Amino acid sequence: MEKSMQKYLDKAEVLIEALPYIQRFNRKIIVVKYGGSAMVDETLKERVIQDVTLLKLVGFKPIIVHGGGKEISKWVGKVGMEPEFVNGLRVTDEATMELAEMVLGKVNKSLVQLVESLGVRAIGISGKDGKLLSVEKKYADGEDIGFVGEITHVNADILYDLLEKDFLPIVCPIGLDDAYQTYNINADDAACAIARAMKAEKLAFLTDIEGVYKDPDDPDTLISELPVTEAEALMNQGYIGGGMLPKLQNCIDAIENGVSRVHILDGRIPHCLLLEIFTNKGIGTAILNDTDERYYQGE
Amino acid sequence: MEKSMQKYLDKAEVLIEALPYIQRFNRKIIVVKYGGSAMVDETLKERVIQDVTLLKLVGFKPIIVHGGGKEISKWVGKVGMEPEFVNGLRVTDEATMELAEMVLGKVNKSLVQLVESLGVRAIGISGKDGKLLSVEKKYADGEDIGFVGEITHVNADILYDLLEKDFLPIVCPIGLDDAYQTYNINADDAACAIARAMKAEKLAFLTDIEGVYKDPDDPDTLISELPVTEAEALMNQGYIGGGMLPKLQNCIDAIENGVSRVHILDGRIPHCLLLEIFTNKGIGTAILNDTDERYYQGE
Amino acid sequence: MEKSMQKYLDKAEVLIEALPYIQRFNRKIIVVKYGGSAMVDETLKERVIQDVTLLKLVGFKPIIVHGGGKEISKWVGKVGMEPEFVNGLRVTDEATMELAEMVLGKVNKSLVQLVESLGVRAIGISGKDGKLLSVEKKYADGEDIGFVGEITHVNADILYDLLEKDFLPIVCPIGLDDAYQTYNINADDAACAIARAMKAEKLAFLTDIEGVYKDPDDPDTLISELPVTEAEALMNQGYIGGGMLPKLQNCIDAIENGVSRVHILDGRIPHCLLLEIFTNKGIGTAILNDTDERYYQGE
Amino acid sequence: MEKSMQKYLDKAEVLIEALPYIQRFNRKIIVVKYGGSAMVDETLKERVIQDVTLLKLVGFKPIIVHGGGKEISKWVGKVGMEPEFVNGLRVTDEATMELAEMVLGKVNKSLVQLVESLGVRAIGISGKDGKLLSVEKKYADGEDIGFVGEITHVNADILYDLLEKDFLPIVCPIGLDDAYQTYNINADDAACAIARAMKAEKLAFLTDIEGVYKDPDDPDTLISELPVTEAEALMNQGYIGGGMLPKLQNCIDAIENGVSRVHILDGRIPHCLLLEIFTNKGIGTAILNDTDERYYQGE
Amino acid sequence: MEKSMQKYLDKAEVLIEALPYIQRFNRKIIVVKYGGSAMVDETLKERVIQDVTLLKLVGFKPIIVHGGGKEISKWVGKVGMEPEFVNGLRVTDEATMELAEMVLGKVNKSLVQLVESLGVRAIGISGKDGKLLSVEKKYADGEDIGFVGEITHVNADILYDLLEKDFLPIVCPIGLDDAYQTYNINADDAACAIARAMKAEKLAFLTDIEGVYKDPDDPDTLISELPVTEAEALMNQGYIGGGMLPKLQNCIDAIENGVSRVHILDGRIPHCLLLEIFTNKGIGTAILNDTDERYYQGE
Amino acid sequence: MEKSMQKYLDKAEVLIEALPYIQRFNRKIIVVKYGGSAMVDETLKERVIQDVTLLKLVGFKPIIVHGGGKEISKWVGKVGMEPEFVNGLRVTDEATMELAEMVLGKVNKSLVQLVESLGVRAIGISGKDGKLLSVEKKYADGEDIGFVGEITHVNADILYDLLEKDFLPIVCPIGLDDAYQTYNINADDAACAIARAMKAEKLAFLTDIEGVYKDPDDPDTLISELPVTEAEALMNQGYIGGGMLPKLQNCIDAIENGVSRVHILDGRIPHCLLLEIFTNKGIGTAILNDTDERYYQGE
Repeated sequence: MEKSMQKYLDKAEVLIEALPYIQRFNRKIIVVKYGGSAMVDETLKERVIQDVTLLKLVGFKPIIVHGGGKEISKWVGKVGMEPEFVNGLRVTDEATMELAEMVLGKVNKSLVQLVESLGVRAIGISGKDGKLLSVEKKYADGEDIGFVGEITHVNADILYDLLEKDFLPIVCPIGLDDAYQTYNINADDAACAIARAMKAEKLAFLTDIEGVYKDPDDPDTLISELPVTEAEALMNQGYIGGGMLPKLQNCIDAIENGVSRVHILDGRIPHCLLLEIFTNKGIGTAILNDTDERYYQGE
Repeated sequence: MEKSMQKYLDKAEVLIEALPYIQRFNRKIIVVKYGGSAMVDETLKERVIQDVTLLKLVGFKPIIVHGGGKEISKWVGKVGMEPEFVNGLRVTDEATMELAEMVLGKVNKSLVQLVESLGVRAIGISGKDGKLLSVEKKYADGEDIGFVGEITHVNADILYDLLEKDFLPIVCPIGLDDAYQTYNINADDAACAIARAMKAEKLAFLTDIEGVYKDPDDPDTLISELPVTEAEALMNQGYIGGGMLPKLQNCIDAIENGVSRVHILDGRIPHCLLLEIFTNKGIGTAILNDTDERYYQGE
Repeated sequence: MEKSMQKYLDKAEVLIEALPYIQRFNRKIIVVKYGGSAMVDETLKERVIQDVTLLKLVGFKPIIVHGGGKEISKWVGKVGMEPEFVNGLRVTDEATMELAEMVLGKVNKSLVQLVESLGVRAIGISGKDGKLLSVEKKYADGEDIGFVGEITHVNADILYDLLEKDFLPIVCPIGLDDAYQTYNINADDAACAIARAMKAEKLAFLTDIEGVYKDPDDPDTLISELPVTEAEALMNQGYIGGGMLPKLQNCIDAIENGVSRVHILDGRIPHCLLLEIFTNKGIGTAILNDTDERYYQGE
Repeated sequence: MEKSMQKYLDKAEVLIEALPYIQRFNRKIIVVKYGGSAMVDETLKERVIQDVTLLKLVGFKPIIVHGGGKEISKWVGKVGMEPEFVNGLRVTDEATMELAEMVLGKVNKSLVQLVESLGVRAIGISGKDGKLLSVEKKYADGEDIGFVGEITHVNADILYDLLEKDFLPIVCPIGLDDAYQTYNINADDAACAIARAMKAEKLAFLTDIEGVYKDPDDPDTLISELPVTEAEALMNQGYIGGGMLPKLQNCIDAIENGVSRVHILDGRIPHCLLLEIFTNKGIGTAILNDTDERYYQGE
Repeated sequence: MEKSMQKYLDKAEVLIEALPYIQRFNRKIIVVKYGGSAMVDETLKERVIQDVTLLKLVGFKPIIVHGGGKEISKWVGKVGMEPEFVNGLRVTDEATMELAEMVLGKVNKSLVQLVESLGVRAIGISGKDGKLLSVEKKYADGEDIGFVGEITHVNADILYDLLEKDFLPIVCPIGLDDAYQTYNINADDAACAIARAMKAEKLAFLTDIEGVYKDPDDPDTLISELPVTEAEALMNQGYIGGGMLPKLQNCIDAIENGVSRVHILDGRIPHCLLLEIFTNKGIGTAILNDTDERYYQGE
Repeated sequence: MEKSMQKYLDKAEVLIEALPYIQRFNRKIIVVKYGGSAMVDETLKERVIQDVTLLKLVGFKPIIVHGGGKEISKWVGKVGMEPEFVNGLRVTDEATMELAEMVLGKVNKSLVQLVESLGVRAIGISGKDGKLLSVEKKYADGEDIGFVGEITHVNADILYDLLEKDFLPIVCPIGLDDAYQTYNINADDAACAIARAMKAEKLAFLTDIEGVYKDPDDPDTLISELPVTEAEALMNQGYIGGGMLPKLQNCIDAIENGVSRVHILDGRIPHCLLLEIFTNKGIGTAILNDTDERYYQGE
């Protein structure tokens, strides 16, 4: 057989290898927290959206939750706003909240646009639509830091209804309190709360780190699959660094509330989502129940 | 019967008077173009949203299409952008388009918020979501005025699906061309196109004028009900002033494409929507087919 | 603003005031026991039917249960029948039962006719249709009083099916025993049994009294909202007069079996139903759970 | 094989013989006009109801339309009303109409009761329910004969909805005009109009005659199957007697409007419906299209 | 009335007698194990299929499970295969399994053909389709007897889905183990497992015996209705002969797992199914719960 | 980036490349005629089933139609049957038909088994089930060649119902005539008839040839995309060889009856189905409408 044909056959084999994964997650909900570098770099952005769109087309039910931190900072500067601080913490005052909502809205629709350009039905909403995300004011060590909210309820029916109508929902993390005041929400928290409320099969965080390490100083100790008990042990032993701590806690909460697997992925690797889901290469760290079967066999 | 009781009985009578109107428009689609003063004044804004929410609750299927012109201008100044002109026409360059989308998004979600606070399920979308509004570039007398689009297709299924899931859709007039580029759309045109695509029962424009006059100089000649043929005659006779001309043309197009009635209402009158729909007081001008039955009996 | 416009604006405000009530009871079931003066006086009759029809149109699911006592008596005379008595109690013998069924049927269809004339889909049934009401023979202190039945089972599916097909069901209180023999049923009991079987949100009795008084001799002591425990206390204290006693017992039974509120209304006040439901004027007495929130704020 | 077993085997064979008929009419609509002797004799009545109930249970969708002439006359006497006449025609004045509605309602519910006792879901309605039957005033040779109506519209959705909810609808021939006034309708006309509106597979008249004869004086000339063209010829030739003439005209109208077969049956023969439908014995006369296949092979 | 008419009336009466039985089992599932003489004799075969088809047409949901033992033996000879034995037990080696599947497939489609010829929608499947029957290898006293399987799971959804689409499923008893290897299954076991998994109303075995006898030597002691406790007593007392023992155990298991009645019928009697179900003649033995009502009244 | 990671990224790219193809054919019906070498070679067989299963999992609605010629011949020998001939044509007598049905049934269930082992719901039927394929006797130049049928009707509802219940239908080409006699059908004809009846998006023939050549003697002239008009021209010019002629005629018929594309594929190339559908490599010949867009761009 000639060489060019072999190339095509190899392609076919790749598709066939995906078969059991497609089979396993058919009609399952996957919440993807999208942020960090993968959101800034246009090429990576396109790769992420391709991945999620493919997941949708082969039968999964993905939901994207995105942040927009860097873009917001850029606009705060552009408009010439003076950031306010309380006890060293940035305060989300009314003007900041207004601008943040505008920027997140812009990011939201740009993702919708990308998904639509790939021929899949997307809808961009915030936590205001259908009052998806109810919040209450969050305090930082007792200090008022403005319109920063903590989620008290997820109106999951909104997302079920949109999924039923075959939309790929793209959610920006803004919520309403009981007085219908607007609040900003941490995107990780929003993704986690939505995954829990919908008993998602998977929750994937696209981050700027490679995953969880046994020894943070040794790049060879990346953990492919991490049962919750081991994760808690690592946290107790002080092995888990600053920014990772709340994220890992979020992961454990998700697992304990019915999500099957939480993936911490390196969003800087193109197609990290597909690689994690459709191959036996664990490219990040998957948090799972202690009793769950493990998939990855290394290379 | 004591006086206070009489007051209550009067209230009951008002509700009962609404009965035939509720009956007549049950499950009918009403597209409301929301703009002008009614959008700037907070009290009027609340009244409009109350009206639309009531229409929803008593069984209509309202869809709001809104603009945001004044708010956009405010932000253009805030950001310190220099407007560009071609042949005296303002140009929507990329930066303006980006800002316009952000502002319209903000307005959109503020309306969602108001509707939700009244206990009704709202969803705010733009013409990008589900590729609701497809456009092509619009030229002004052959001149390129940037990202200003003309609607070529309305994907009505998106709105039918949202209505079926009991959402009150709130649409901002932004569209995508075949290359998935973002375009601004005239809100009147968007409302008209949506009403036509969905064969809406009613299309209502909330404007800053009182309606159409037989004699623009005589405030006593406001026309309550204007059949298309008469409307065309008025236009031919030159009786219709500048800004009203394209609007009236839009109205006639809508009627000729299956919309039953188009209402030009004075958005400065509180509850103008309810007054027009639930009472026999024609407070604006209704365009209708020549053969349609007339409702209003004056006072 | 001119005076006539003000009148219209006031009307709009009344509609808007109804908004939260419409919102609160959307798609909830309301069983209305219709009888007494409100059924004899043609004007009141029309008002009641307008009220129920409006409730239907704005999204409630009303069910009417009616009696026909006075009309039956009139026909007993007309036909020249001799009433039979046992221990002083009127006996429903076969001939009386036959006539009662005929009269109740006539009343039933006259209500259907009124509702239909307002453009709403009505269906008039008795407890025989779909065997809605199963009964067993009822004895008065051990004495046989003929074909008077006590409800043993409500086939709620019949009413759910009719509501699903958007009918307003109008029920006359006739039932069948296990041998498929016809029995007359007390209309209050029928309304109560149906409300219980369907876990109705509300059960409203249109009566010829103003409500429950703390002191029956003092017209200023009408109780707007009466929690069950207080109602039982009143009954135990002997404050509740003859005819009211079984009615109040019925109300308490309904509340204890899942109905949220039972309203004793004065059917002689026009639109008493609308007034009770759509305004903060408690015009009768509402029986409710001890822990339920109270609505009425007096005037 | 012993004799008693043979008896049972014979029974099984009868059931098996019915198989092709059950198969052929599965889910088809059959309108049965029920009247005459079959309605007076209690044993025949039970037989008819058994037949219709069986049709329902084996998969047909029967609808009963009944009259009540003799019972009405009985009650007119009982109440002591004086019949009024115009040009020799009995007039249905308001009092007569009221009584007729009461009697027909009673008959209606007695049929419901019988069907329910056989374990099948029945619902008794008149043409008022859901405004099933719209009428206009009928004149007899220009003379006002009171509240006698001619059907102008059948609201077939009402019956489709009830059939979908698995009810066996039992209809009494009373209608409403545009002013919602009550009118009496000829039961034959009502059955025919309903069968036409629903494109029924079959329309069966239970009558007090044996069917149509070629020669009315020769009992051996009963016609089993009569194509419309032949029926019209018989009528033109004057072979068809008085009462049969309008009935036959009704039959022809039904066939020409989409009903497949109209059966004129002798209601005095027990189980005439089953015999006509489930055996090859044509016991009455079936009117059919000229091109339709014939079933009956005589004995 | 003439004699021929009487014959027809008798027929009608038979149909009417079936009414309560049709009513009682409407939409209930009946699993029919079809085998033995009733499968060899072409006339009996036709009778059985007529019976099952009639059950389907009058509203039951029958499922046929069939064997094919004699036909398999015939083909083993035809192909010239040498049967293998282990400890005196016939072994189902690969070649035998292949042939058995071919023969059962042929029998299966011949039944489909018969049902279709009666105008009813049939579908013939094996336990492979939709992995209806999962099995594990069965050993005979520890000896390997080849591809003989024991059912470990019934995928009832497959049958529910086919019933919902109005098919009459015809199942041949072949299953798959976890490695997707083909196994033969005892048809009685398959019928029993399916009836249990679907909580069938009835399970009927068509056999070559008359039923269960109190005294196997006295033909007058056939037991019409046998509560499980009595059945167990009979078994313990040693009254139940060889082949009947496992069958009776199967029956008891079925009853204890939610099947209401299990019928052991003599398939050599034509229409034995109809006779058992539609008449009060218990022609075989029905196993039932101790507390269930008995039907048969003898002759 | 290390080499092993690159390998994974390449895999991801392959999946992403499939995205537009998956998108384009989502929920479309694809009829696959499966036969020839691809059915004999176990490895090729597995590849074909993998391909079809993948198509199913990513949202297509495949239907397999298979033959079994070589296997039938093998069994004819095994059983020792003497083939009969008429005018040199092999006759399908009753015994051959019986055996053919058995063999086709075996092949059918073996395919079911393979699909099920990949975790997808399969159902194996013949044209008898639900009377999917109605036939009439086919004559060869007027000669009776036994039970060989020509399709007169496809009962497409059967397949729609099975697809709706998420089955992958596997059909063997056996049909029934009006007398419910069994007939053998050419598998190509069956596939074509089914594709036409269901207006399939695609019909793919797995054959033992490479496709259609412009010049049969020049292997470099394989035609990737062949509009019908050109196909007809080739046939008229005598360029198309013996066996290909009826197949090509079948293809043209399919296109002219609503199938969008017919693919003649070389079943000897592993994954030929995936290659044809998911890559821009046209590995066989696609017949299409003259006006349709072409896909393949060569290599």
